[in-house]
Amino acid sequence: MIGVFDSGLGGLTVVKELLKRLPQYKIVYFGDTARTPYGTKSAETVIRYAIEDTKFLLSLSAKIIVVACHTVSSTAMPTLRERFPNIPFFEVVTPSFRKALNLTKNKKVGLIGTRTTVESGIYERLFSEADPEIKLYANPAPLLVPLIEEGWIKKPETRSIVKKYLIPLKMRGIDTLILGCTHYPLLKKVIQEKAGKRIKLVDPSEEVALLVKSYLEENPDVACHFERSEKSPNGEPEIYVSDLTPNFERMAKLFLQRDIKLRKVDLESYLGSREDK
Amino acid sequence: MIGVFDSGLGGLTVVKELLKRLPQYKIVYFGDTARTPYGTKSAETVIRYAIEDTKFLLSLSAKIIVVACHTVSSTAMPTLRERFPNIPFFEVVTPSFRKALNLTKNKKVGLIGTRTTVESGIYERLFSEADPEIKLYANPAPLLVPLIEEGWIKKPETRSIVKKYLIPLKMRGIDTLILGCTHYPLLKKVIQEKAGKRIKLVDPSEEVALLVKSYLEENPDVACHFERSEKSPNGEPEIYVSDLTPNFERMAKLFLQRDIKLRKVDLESYLGSREDK
Repeated sequence: MIGVFDSGLGGLTVVKELLKRLPQYKIVYFGDTARTPYGTKSAETVIRYAIEDTKFLLSLSAKIIVVACHTVSSTAMPTLRERFPNIPFFEVVTPSFRKALNLTKNKKVGLIGTRTTVESGIYERLFSEADPEIKLYANPAPLLVPLIEEGWIKKPETRSIVKKYLIPLKMRGIDTLILGCTHYPLLKKVIQEKAGKRIKLVDPSEEVALLVKSYLEENPDVACHFERSEKSPNGEPEIYVSDLTPNFERMAKLFLQRDIKLRKVDLESYLGSREDK
Repeated sequence: MIGVFDSGLGGLTVVKELLKRLPQYKIVYFGDTARTPYGTKSAETVIRYAIEDTKFLLSLSAKIIVVACHTVSSTAMPTLRERFPNIPFFEVVTPSFRKALNLTKNKKVGLIGTRTTVESGIYERLFSEADPEIKLYANPAPLLVPLIEEGWIKKPETRSIVKKYLIPLKMRGIDTLILGCTHYPLLKKVIQEKAGKRIKLVDPSEEVALLVKSYLEENPDVACHFERSEKSPNGEPEIYVSDLTPNFERMAKLFLQRDIKLRKVDLESYLGSREDK
């Protein structure tokens, strides 16, 4: 079973890509909608939440964990790997960094993301270790998440705000742009239009799904953990959320582009009652 | 001591009004920045959080509690009053309803707020009980909170989004508009401009501060609980948050319009350790 988590429902863009490439695997998703968003919160708080999210997915027998959240990917990975040493973790930062490294020709790479992701400096570190000549230009784009969650994908205000966020990056002459948030693939068309044809976009949801696929192909011993009985009969992923509203249901449909049942779990009581046992 | 809480920092607009009117009282504020926003979450989750926020303020010896959050005011008050029967609670919905009831002449009142506040239907119930002839026209305005929190107060996109939210209300011919969220007083000028001169705005932060002031004047027995030693020496309120980032510090300054030290508290561990004792 593949466990996927995110601060909210944005990580469902990763589930969508996984379903496309690995339809034979059962996917369990947890969206921490009761505490969403993580992208405005401190690293310490994000790490605490990420540990709880992981524990929940492991309790449902997840064998590998996909962190479908840039904020967690850029702040909590060393702690998660230390706390759960036997679990293969995949995150969204490294595969999008690698893709951008391959794509850029003029060595000028742009990044948009939440404030926490951008301020973590993780992409700077990865690029400077891989090729010190690469310049990374990053701009926090905090309004894109609420605009996407409102479904304001094609509104003129959204286009204008996207343009505003991209201007300083375009002025630097970037040829590659990392979409540093799993919500952003929904705005890909608008972002591509405002960025212009010459800038190549890196979609983290696509990149991490490709990585998980090749990992499962190369590691048949891990893959064999996925017994036939565990496979979902109709290919439906199981989607858990820590809070459920009609608006979250609407958003899940928007992200997954299919009708899906959300199941609510009270994370604190659930984990508390398991630890009591 | 007056305890004030909100899902985040928007409630500091209430603190600002209280400081203006009641400078002799010590104010303790709690902003649940680790779980902000509440306005997109379910009533059940909001109620659970509101109980914890109240417990925290009572543990710091608050004698009255001001709920500076429309989402909590419109969903959690019966539960809070039942759970803490000896504590006088003030909330932001009733005083703004009363003010609008006095102001409206054509009996057409508008409301903007978060999705949870608008969908709670609390204003509809209050108006229909007070005067069934009053028509309330409500429009959720969920993008205003992130725009304000980004400090985009005067940006053209913000003006355009405000205009968009007000169009359906203006078309109904409202003469009074309730700002149903403690963030919105920061956008008062833009909202007034887009609403037009004929529409009177109701500012909930002002209204609840006036109510607390008259309560303390009329109830000297409660007021005498505030001993001189408890008064803040320099009139500074104590501001606690469940998560602290440079951006939250910037926002606190924006809302209070003064420099202020934020103190971080881990609510779950704090309440957990007190309950263990």
